[in-house]
Amino acid sequence: MSPARSSAGAVLVTPSPAAMVWHEPGRAHESIAVPGVELRPGEALVEVELATVCGSDVHTVLGHRRQPAPGVLGHEQVGRIVALGPGGASSVDGAVLALGDRVVWTVTASCGACERCLRGLPQKCHELRKYGHERLERGWELSGGFATHVHLLRGTGIVRVPEAMPAELAAPASCSTATAVAALDAGGGAPLDGAEVLVAGAGMIGLAVTAIASAAGATVTVVDPDDVRRDTARRFGARTVLDPGDGALAGQLAAHGRSAPVLSVEASGAAGSVRALLETSEVGGTVVLVGSVSPGPSVELDPERMVRRLLTVRGVHNYAPAHLQGAIDFLAATPGPFAAERLVGASFPLDALDEALVTAAAGTHVRVAVDPHAR
Amino acid sequence: MSPARSSAGAVLVTPSPAAMVWHEPGRAHESIAVPGVELRPGEALVEVELATVCGSDVHTVLGHRRQPAPGVLGHEQVGRIVALGPGGASSVDGAVLALGDRVVWTVTASCGACERCLRGLPQKCHELRKYGHERLERGWELSGGFATHVHLLRGTGIVRVPEAMPAELAAPASCSTATAVAALDAGGGAPLDGAEVLVAGAGMIGLAVTAIASAAGATVTVVDPDDVRRDTARRFGARTVLDPGDGALAGQLAAHGRSAPVLSVEASGAAGSVRALLETSEVGGTVVLVGSVSPGPSVELDPERMVRRLLTVRGVHNYAPAHLQGAIDFLAATPGPFAAERLVGASFPLDALDEALVTAAAGTHVRVAVDPHAR
Repeated sequence: MSPARSSAGAVLVTPSPAAMVWHEPGRAHESIAVPGVELRPGEALVEVELATVCGSDVHTVLGHRRQPAPGVLGHEQVGRIVALGPGGASSVDGAVLALGDRVVWTVTASCGACERCLRGLPQKCHELRKYGHERLERGWELSGGFATHVHLLRGTGIVRVPEAMPAELAAPASCSTATAVAALDAGGGAPLDGAEVLVAGAGMIGLAVTAIASAAGATVTVVDPDDVRRDTARRFGARTVLDPGDGALAGQLAAHGRSAPVLSVEASGAAGSVRALLETSEVGGTVVLVGSVSPGPSVELDPERMVRRLLTVRGVHNYAPAHLQGAIDFLAATPGPFAAERLVGASFPLDALDEALVTAAAGTHVRVAVDPHAR
Repeated sequence: MSPARSSAGAVLVTPSPAAMVWHEPGRAHESIAVPGVELRPGEALVEVELATVCGSDVHTVLGHRRQPAPGVLGHEQVGRIVALGPGGASSVDGAVLALGDRVVWTVTASCGACERCLRGLPQKCHELRKYGHERLERGWELSGGFATHVHLLRGTGIVRVPEAMPAELAAPASCSTATAVAALDAGGGAPLDGAEVLVAGAGMIGLAVTAIASAAGATVTVVDPDDVRRDTARRFGARTVLDPGDGALAGQLAAHGRSAPVLSVEASGAAGSVRALLETSEVGGTVVLVGSVSPGPSVELDPERMVRRLLTVRGVHNYAPAHLQGAIDFLAATPGPFAAERLVGASFPLDALDEALVTAAAGTHVRVAVDPHAR
């Protein structure tokens, strides 16, 4: 390795950075070398320490999801800064970043100047670029986490990660944990301490919401049809777990001595679950939708009920830089439920990425990791 | 008149306060005398200066709306404090109230101690009582605005009204203007200055939303099928007015050079309008529902669209005391569009209340007034 701060010229890394390029479902990834990365002002080159496979990566390679191709997948990773563009770069909390800093970054890079960025919605920037989601582009080949290095663009929220935090904990933060922080933020700022919170879906986002809300003093009930996932939810802090197959949600909540939730987070994406959460919400309550990222059936909304019960329904997609900072801060303060061995069940070298994706698709592990330093 | 501060005994007013009692659709109001009102701590007796007829009063007397009976209707009024219970009472802004103070008050009285009150939802208090909406009750006969006096309970938000403010402006504040402030507050606190705002329905609430948002610098578009109401909306500050019969809302907005609204307020109650506002909302936008106070058809909600576009739908019903304070503050600072002659088209003595309601039902005036001092 011979990283260097770039000035006018290119950053030379030996051996050259490599990225795994995905073409289409059924075709193996292809490794490409990317010599002489050019960093512009505000940009950084990060050497990947560990990446994890998100459910959306699996959906992409299985062809269940449209994605520009060819491109580099992966958007959950942690790494170290090995080069900085002219003028350097800053972290979300305002610190000047240095070579060697261990960091995670937002899944999106935003322009900071368009109407949506100015309105506080950088995650919906008109010039948005999304790590692990773009077509391969000359000059920005290192655009995904399934690579030895990632090229961070200006407008990316970069968050420093404590040295003591396991990489298995830090890598998924930039996807599910930060989205969970955004989902709870969308709850409207009512205090979580003492609040009755309902979470539908015990995948990574639902588990993160459960852990964060429980740590803040909320009484969390988790609904999931899978008994293994319900057990996991208990370990993440759920006071009550329910199987949607056991009957109407309102009746089940009452039978378990739970009152109507003031905050519900729908993280499963099932239309029936959206409906059930709308039906059970307490007066003045908020239902945050975060799981519905694929086309699905619509849900009937009763306007009079919304009005008379002062209900709020709010969609959340991706997150803002402050939410990633919140995720890392939470993990640093409360690592317990996220203990590494529970999250990452298997790890593969970078050149075995296809195997890692097959293992992830089997669904037996919460997360499968890709380690560029393993052989 | 001989009002007195009550101590242990009753407040004697000469002649005795009178209230108009409503029994059932098709039956004339009956005047009752209420001698010797007893005020408990925190209560006040107000002599009504002017009351206005709300659309919901009309719906009640026409039998289109269920209402406990017999009772005293009316919940839009302004008056002067003529007696205070032991220990006095305070206004919403914390001032000690005095005899002679000119005031309006919230349509709801709340306990201040239940879980909903503590959660900041006094308008949905578990012990809620609502002026002009309750069955006649011994000891609280003066419970509505169609009376010479109203007996204010503890837990009512009382707001002082400047002497210079016309009564025709102040009376409706405690219904539509305060609800309009609550609707805009539900928009999430994004700055209105420079924002694109869409209002569906140019009744009192829609007009108040239009005036307040316009005064704050928003570009307001109003949609209403009635051309007279659209003209009124222009006088209240609407930059653009649209007829929903002229085609899809998104196309009409584009044709008028309007961009997608970041805040939409549905004040008509029509299901088609709820749907249109959901369809046209800008990414990150909020649709506030305030008009849907009667049972009606449900509206299809697309969860994926809610998520990917970060949309918020929020119901608003009634309002909190701070919203009434906001309404009076706005009217004092910006009386222009609410100039009295545009609001109140006819005024009747209290004993001609039935005639006032018939005139209000005809719908030719924005508001019809009831003046207890007229003969």
